Amino acid sequence: MPFRSGLRSLVTSVFAVVFCMSAAHPNPGFADEGMYLFNELPTQLLKERHQFTPTAQWAKSLQLSSVRFNSGGSGSFVSSNGLVLTNHHVASDTLQKLSTPDRNLVDNGYLASDPGQELKAPDLELNVLIEMIDVTQRVQAAVTQHGDAEAAAKQRQASIATIEKESTDETGLRSDVVTLFGGAQYHLYRYKKYTDVRLVWAPETKAAFFGGDADNFEYPRYNLDATIFRVYENDQPAQLEHFLKWSDVPLKEDDLIFVSGHPGRTQRIFTVEALEYLRDVRLPFILDYLRRKEVLLQQYRLESNEAARRGRDELFGIQNGRKAYTGMLAGLQDPQTIASKRGRQNRLKSAALASPELAPLVVAFDQIAEIQTEKAAHLRESVSLRSDLFSFALSIVLMTQEDLKPNAERYPEYTESARESMLTRLTSPAPLYDDLQRVKLADEIALLMERRGGDDELVREVLAGRSPQEVAAELVAQTKIGDPAVREELIAGGYNAVLGSNDPMVQLARKIEPVFRSVRQTTDQLDEREKQAYAQISRIITAAEGTSGYPDATFTLRLAFGTVKGYRENGQPVEPTTDLAGAFTHSAEHEGQEDFDLPQSWLDAKESLDLTTQLNFVSTADIIGGNSGSPVVDRKGNLVGLIFDGNIQSLTSDYLYSDAQSRAVSVSGVGIKEAIRKIYQAPSLADQLGR
Amino acid sequence: MPFRSGLRSLVTSVFAVVFCMSAAHPNPGFADEGMYLFNELPTQLLKERHQFTPTAQWAKSLQLSSVRFNSGGSGSFVSSNGLVLTNHHVASDTLQKLSTPDRNLVDNGYLASDPGQELKAPDLELNVLIEMIDVTQRVQAAVTQHGDAEAAAKQRQASIATIEKESTDETGLRSDVVTLFGGAQYHLYRYKKYTDVRLVWAPETKAAFFGGDADNFEYPRYNLDATIFRVYENDQPAQLEHFLKWSDVPLKEDDLIFVSGHPGRTQRIFTVEALEYLRDVRLPFILDYLRRKEVLLQQYRLESNEAARRGRDELFGIQNGRKAYTGMLAGLQDPQTIASKRGRQNRLKSAALASPELAPLVVAFDQIAEIQTEKAAHLRESVSLRSDLFSFALSIVLMTQEDLKPNAERYPEYTESARESMLTRLTSPAPLYDDLQRVKLADEIALLMERRGGDDELVREVLAGRSPQEVAAELVAQTKIGDPAVREELIAGGYNAVLGSNDPMVQLARKIEPVFRSVRQTTDQLDEREKQAYAQISRIITAAEGTSGYPDATFTLRLAFGTVKGYRENGQPVEPTTDLAGAFTHSAEHEGQEDFDLPQSWLDAKESLDLTTQLNFVSTADIIGGNSGSPVVDRKGNLVGLIFDGNIQSLTSDYLYSDAQSRAVSVSGVGIKEAIRKIYQAPSLADQLGR
Repeated sequence: MPFRSGLRSLVTSVFAVVFCMSAAHPNPGFADEGMYLFNELPTQLLKERHQFTPTAQWAKSLQLSSVRFNSGGSGSFVSSNGLVLTNHHVASDTLQKLSTPDRNLVDNGYLASDPGQELKAPDLELNVLIEMIDVTQRVQAAVTQHGDAEAAAKQRQASIATIEKESTDETGLRSDVVTLFGGAQYHLYRYKKYTDVRLVWAPETKAAFFGGDADNFEYPRYNLDATIFRVYENDQPAQLEHFLKWSDVPLKEDDLIFVSGHPGRTQRIFTVEALEYLRDVRLPFILDYLRRKEVLLQQYRLESNEAARRGRDELFGIQNGRKAYTGMLAGLQDPQTIASKRGRQNRLKSAALASPELAPLVVAFDQIAEIQTEKAAHLRESVSLRSDLFSFALSIVLMTQEDLKPNAERYPEYTESARESMLTRLTSPAPLYDDLQRVKLADEIALLMERRGGDDELVREVLAGRSPQEVAAELVAQTKIGDPAVREELIAGGYNAVLGSNDPMVQLARKIEPVFRSVRQTTDQLDEREKQAYAQISRIITAAEGTSGYPDATFTLRLAFGTVKGYRENGQPVEPTTDLAGAFTHSAEHEGQEDFDLPQSWLDAKESLDLTTQLNFVSTADIIGGNSGSPVVDRKGNLVGLIFDGNIQSLTSDYLYSDAQSRAVSVSGVGIKEAIRKIYQAPSLADQLGR
Repeated sequence: MPFRSGLRSLVTSVFAVVFCMSAAHPNPGFADEGMYLFNELPTQLLKERHQFTPTAQWAKSLQLSSVRFNSGGSGSFVSSNGLVLTNHHVASDTLQKLSTPDRNLVDNGYLASDPGQELKAPDLELNVLIEMIDVTQRVQAAVTQHGDAEAAAKQRQASIATIEKESTDETGLRSDVVTLFGGAQYHLYRYKKYTDVRLVWAPETKAAFFGGDADNFEYPRYNLDATIFRVYENDQPAQLEHFLKWSDVPLKEDDLIFVSGHPGRTQRIFTVEALEYLRDVRLPFILDYLRRKEVLLQQYRLESNEAARRGRDELFGIQNGRKAYTGMLAGLQDPQTIASKRGRQNRLKSAALASPELAPLVVAFDQIAEIQTEKAAHLRESVSLRSDLFSFALSIVLMTQEDLKPNAERYPEYTESARESMLTRLTSPAPLYDDLQRVKLADEIALLMERRGGDDELVREVLAGRSPQEVAAELVAQTKIGDPAVREELIAGGYNAVLGSNDPMVQLARKIEPVFRSVRQTTDQLDEREKQAYAQISRIITAAEGTSGYPDATFTLRLAFGTVKGYRENGQPVEPTTDLAGAFTHSAEHEGQEDFDLPQSWLDAKESLDLTTQLNFVSTADIIGGNSGSPVVDRKGNLVGLIFDGNIQSLTSDYLYSDAQSRAVSVSGVGIKEAIRKIYQAPSLADQLGR
């Protein structure tokens, strides 16, 4: 369960600086390393290492069968009539939103016995990548003021906004310009969007997240971390030309596999000083925040069974993130990691200094180091009160103001090409619960007070003599912003409606907005300077290590590859695959531990199951958060599995790939089919898969 | 469950600066405010407010029936044959240490059906206060170098060590000089010690901590938070002259009650700037630490049922502390709190400035403010790796060195009068578990790295190229310090044995020791300067507000008083008492929530119980952490209850007493007796109580 959807979006917005980084790392140092662009596939490498040459049709079909969950995950089309396969933990945000006190889809799962019972997700947006166009020259030509970071960033952003708008106007497709190789390349990506997405089947959490937090990021595993949606067009199941066939052959050691998905963020280009900043400052800061939220939600959930239901999905996402970041930090705290990165950095510097052309670029390493110091100084300045009601209000205040500006001058998330997706989120009818909103908002206000100090002017203005708890209680009781119709009306009314609103949450957002913009200006400038420095380093790397490679992950479609492979741990071999029988054994070994109970449906079906059916497997493919839900295909392009996790040794993959012990963990396609057919007794659904 | 034992000791050592503060706050602003010295009882106040005059015999008998649990709680003698009543949550540290994989006393409780079955606690030390002697003049006369904080502190400490040693030599009693009223008074306390303490009866956690973390610090409550030990002398039950009689009369609203116990720490004298430091710096820092430990232990406990058992008591203590500190911080974040404190501070300053004699003392407020800034700068310097094995090693390294110094120059905890108690702790045979030790130590090393940075010299020396996890695993695997006999031998061998030891944990402690001493020197000096400044402020308060009062709490015996009284919350009245029937109702209302299951023993006994028996009650008595387990007595001095918690509104009592909603929560004496007799089917034990 690496970086599931809920968490990814949490983290991208809260910790934008870390997550927006995108940079280059060509020339993989390890065997199966790499997250390749579909328009720059490593054909030579695949041929040499795996005697495989992807045909254009193979690649195109895989690309068009791959789906991005905009909430922060991956998926794939698996039938001609619109079925989409992803992880339960990618879907769980939607399962939570579709649940009520009397219908707990997260715990109990769901099966639509006919299309009429398929439940429409309140705010899911799925993207299919249709086309990629290199627009590097146009973007770079637009930038003339290279000496002034802020001016250069504005020029670049204006150019990108214009390209995106032209593309949207021309094609009607969602159009994003993606920054690759630290700014060495810019590609225009065009997506077909699906916003009518309906739930078909989900297992119980006890099956999907069997072993719970204890087994998360561990292996061997026995998880049915899968859920099936269906995309609709014009209120009818979408008819799809491209979808994945379903392999009925279990995998075995050394089988070649491919992963087509949307890795969210890697930082493999990071300099030693950037990694030290992560190790000593940034990750400890993030972890303090995540543990704070974890404890807060646990305490809230103790109040009642209904509170437990309401807070469940969010807590799971935070726990998953906490465990992932803990592993990431542990990797950086191993002096060998920094030593190995320092060795490479010294080699790059020496090589560059020996070349008259590259020597002037070496200063970029010092610039990155300086920027880290500045980042540390600004670390505690964020004023985004992370609670749904406030976030809605702030987004609406920002959007209605940005709408008044020329498209090219807006924040990227409010440009015309991005606006529709933002609108989908801001008008989501997903339920909000006052008690949970109160708890979260009070804690965020208290945190604002801790970070800025009780004597800070903004803090005093927000409190106006009241405690954070009182402020939150009043705001939640009085605001109407929880009603999607109210939000829609405010947005439609534009900035004048916002100015005229006496909704206290909108008024709070207006109070905070100027500070928000000021903080964002600082972080945007730091990002821009960092981007320019990494672009220089990228040139050094290309000169020193060669050109074939892949850019750091950007939550856009990539192809990874590897083989099914076990490993050794504590001197013992770990087998590459597990089966259904193993799930029952594992449960018995942990008798009395709640997270290791299998659901009743599994116990009931045990007799009828082929217990030798493969359930999970590990491979050397290079994945990261955002890859959750990615299809795993074989040489023929047929679906053989579903990425859902990395093992604990893989948590350092953010900055360092290794195939010694690091593994991607998948649900086997054959396991999913057997379970749907026999445990969930949905043979007609099973028959549709891959057809 | 305010500040239970385990936590208090955790916090006193980790966060010594906050907790060692002791200062004055005479002239209570509220009705039943105050934690009075037994040698300075508020007789006038009691007469005026409650028409009660304590006789010398009443007070003496109560004093000699009161017991301090050195692990951080209170208790009382309740029979002539040595029975000691305290809270389950004060005892749980011992219950945990007496448990094994096959005998879980924490979960399941215990009943010794005859004296032979009473289980000896591995390291409990109980203290009974025999005598108090004012030694202020002698201590103050010893200090001549007033201008030099460090020299003055050394002179004072030397004088105290000498007084304590003389007293121990003369009487054979444990002798502590206690600093009161911020250094305006010093009293020598002589204690009789009991170190052979045996477990007689404990209920299940489900009864003692019914409602769990959800109900902790809440009211109404239905908890049987009680446990009974017996003290032994010469392997026989101690024959006690002083013990509390047991009242069979349930309490009713407005009844006058007294609490005789050991409040751990209050900081009511704190200046506004000191409270702002707590609010903006210190408490957020402590809470980050506690949440980190909470999450760490939760994750550890998921591994297996046995791991869950091993980590249980420590986790509960940490959760209790986290909830208490959260409430404390929330109180400080309410602007009204600071405003009210600022009002009083301004009045004090004005009064002082109007007096030629006091005006020069006003600078003390600025000094306190400056010291807070310095404290913030030193906040992250601690090098105490909080894990049992390392703490043992460091204490042994320190003790054997301190032993070489003249008694008057040692750290207070290693002087001759304190040495025996330290030895009891260091040679405790309580079980330690390698897996838990590894997890805790690895996290502490990682935290050291986070706080000092990965490039810090000490950190590099500790790691020596290995990760924190690897270092911890090697240390725990190779050290012999977990064996109490090894510790005893090392201590007996003195500093030469330490120097010659090749035990890696001892060697690590020796590496860290110089930095530990240097950090401690800084904090000791800050403490001393603060103490001197508060002594000035104490003079201002006495001059401005009068002389009758009580000193801030110092984990020494105090008398508090109040009445049984309900309150209003959210516009609704809250009744002052609950009964056994309420426990069953409360359980039914929370069906399906684990923490609200009553134990089987209660379900089995339900029919036989008098369900109208009083179970818990609230009163206005002024208590704080450390008071857990304190006896509550009536006008006759008979036991009517057992303090176990404060309500959520009382969490600000550290710095501000109020009787508006803030309440002390107790178990009723009649409820304890009914439960022991009918639920735990121990009529003979019930018959001994109070006799």
